[in-house]
Amino acid sequence: MKELGYYNGTIGELSEMMIPMADRVCWFGDGVYEAQLCRNYHIFTLDEHVDRLFRSAALLKIEVPMTKEELKRLLNELVQKMDTGDLMLYYQVTRGSGKRNHAFPKGPANLWVTLTPKTLNDSTEPVSLITDEDTRFLHCNIKTLNLIPSVMANQKAVEAGCYECVFYRAGGRITECSHSNVHIIKDGTLYTAPTDHLILAGIARAHLIKACKKLGIPVSETPFTLDDLQNADEIITTSSTNPCIRACKVDGKDAGMKREDLFMALHKEIIGEFLSDTAE
Amino acid sequence: MKELGYYNGTIGELSEMMIPMADRVCWFGDGVYEAQLCRNYHIFTLDEHVDRLFRSAALLKIEVPMTKEELKRLLNELVQKMDTGDLMLYYQVTRGSGKRNHAFPKGPANLWVTLTPKTLNDSTEPVSLITDEDTRFLHCNIKTLNLIPSVMANQKAVEAGCYECVFYRAGGRITECSHSNVHIIKDGTLYTAPTDHLILAGIARAHLIKACKKLGIPVSETPFTLDDLQNADEIITTSSTNPCIRACKVDGKDAGMKREDLFMALHKEIIGEFLSDTAE
Repeated sequence: MKELGYYNGTIGELSEMMIPMADRVCWFGDGVYEAQLCRNYHIFTLDEHVDRLFRSAALLKIEVPMTKEELKRLLNELVQKMDTGDLMLYYQVTRGSGKRNHAFPKGPANLWVTLTPKTLNDSTEPVSLITDEDTRFLHCNIKTLNLIPSVMANQKAVEAGCYECVFYRAGGRITECSHSNVHIIKDGTLYTAPTDHLILAGIARAHLIKACKKLGIPVSETPFTLDDLQNADEIITTSSTNPCIRACKVDGKDAGMKREDLFMALHKEIIGEFLSDTAE
Repeated sequence: MKELGYYNGTIGELSEMMIPMADRVCWFGDGVYEAQLCRNYHIFTLDEHVDRLFRSAALLKIEVPMTKEELKRLLNELVQKMDTGDLMLYYQVTRGSGKRNHAFPKGPANLWVTLTPKTLNDSTEPVSLITDEDTRFLHCNIKTLNLIPSVMANQKAVEAGCYECVFYRAGGRITECSHSNVHIIKDGTLYTAPTDHLILAGIARAHLIKACKKLGIPVSETPFTLDDLQNADEIITTSSTNPCIRACKVDGKDAGMKREDLFMALHKEIIGEFLSDTAE
């Protein structure tokens, strides 16, 4: 198949897939999701993503309608149906179906999967960023389908010709971007926001920290500010599809780009892990 | 029809309606909505709700795919298809369809409508409330489909055997409830939160204020606190389906219930307006 859609056992071409209007995603965005890459039909870091899906679901009291092992088996089976093995694997669980009513429904949760062709972004070309105030809810540790503020911020970045929008809370603390984590290097140390309720504990973020430790780069999981971002030696964003991106501009002004040695070493380590784990 | 579903021109029984998986509601909850009552096939306060839908959409840069007049004509036509004229009319606009991508799609927005039997709650029986911290985003003035925090709060209220959950921001300021506005009477004055970004400007709230003015009850649109709520003379919640509800308990403790005269006068005024505007 070219682009696959799956919904509670029904499989079809994504563009033709239909879902019941009674799914609570339609009224409340009531669900959690994961998105990750496959290469050569290998799903990269599957255990970590499935674990996070179950954590997100548990925090919202949504019961995933199968075990972790069953879900991983299903995802691997679906990947095998595709015309290419280089894919974006996306899956989500929504809190069941029923009449529109805020309180939880009685029935089981719904499982959705999509598979679309995608390759890793391993570019070392620097990108531009904008910043905007973080007005999101205080549950950013949960990977939910309530994403309007991220949609608005990303659109703003696109309209400014930029790669991402970096969020800062009132007071100046940097949290993350519209669909990436963001980190800085200053005086040889990597600073990254702590994993509290204001950011998603990114899996690519965890791999960046692991790469730092392997390379002997100190890591400080402490909040940093908009001012720190603007004066950083390097600015790096991470996400599952774009695992190690370097930035050269923040809000139109030159920024970062002072420790190419560290950025290139981290990039090599992170991309190398992806390539070796998904080799044929 | 018993329960109607409408999606971009397709009409069917709600329980059988399907929508494309490509609708952005599925991935981002990316849309805005309205819900209101009909009686005797009359839609109550239609102009006010349609105006608010367009305001919500504009704040998110969603273009409603028809004019206000066209939308009102359509809604009135759909109401005529129903077996009963006592209905909940629900409608929403989602930001188009396409591949999952945060940035805005090119195509038009999608229009959804549902109609289900419902009668006004005109009860004067007092209800119990719980309270919880308001951790929602800072765009509560927009009536969006990003409703997970309201879902979680309402479920908490239901599990506690209560009618609603009242939100307070860190610091104690009361905002609103999971799907109602909340107001207090103290020393003969009605206090209601100002319509900033922390609450929805409820249409039933506006009618409560109008009723106060008609009855000579002073209104103060100023923030009040959890402490004020607990020590109020009366506590009133308003929403389009439950336009004037009295509370007697907050978090298990007796509260309000000291100005039955004012509550009953407001209740009579508000229910009376609904009944006369929707008379056969």
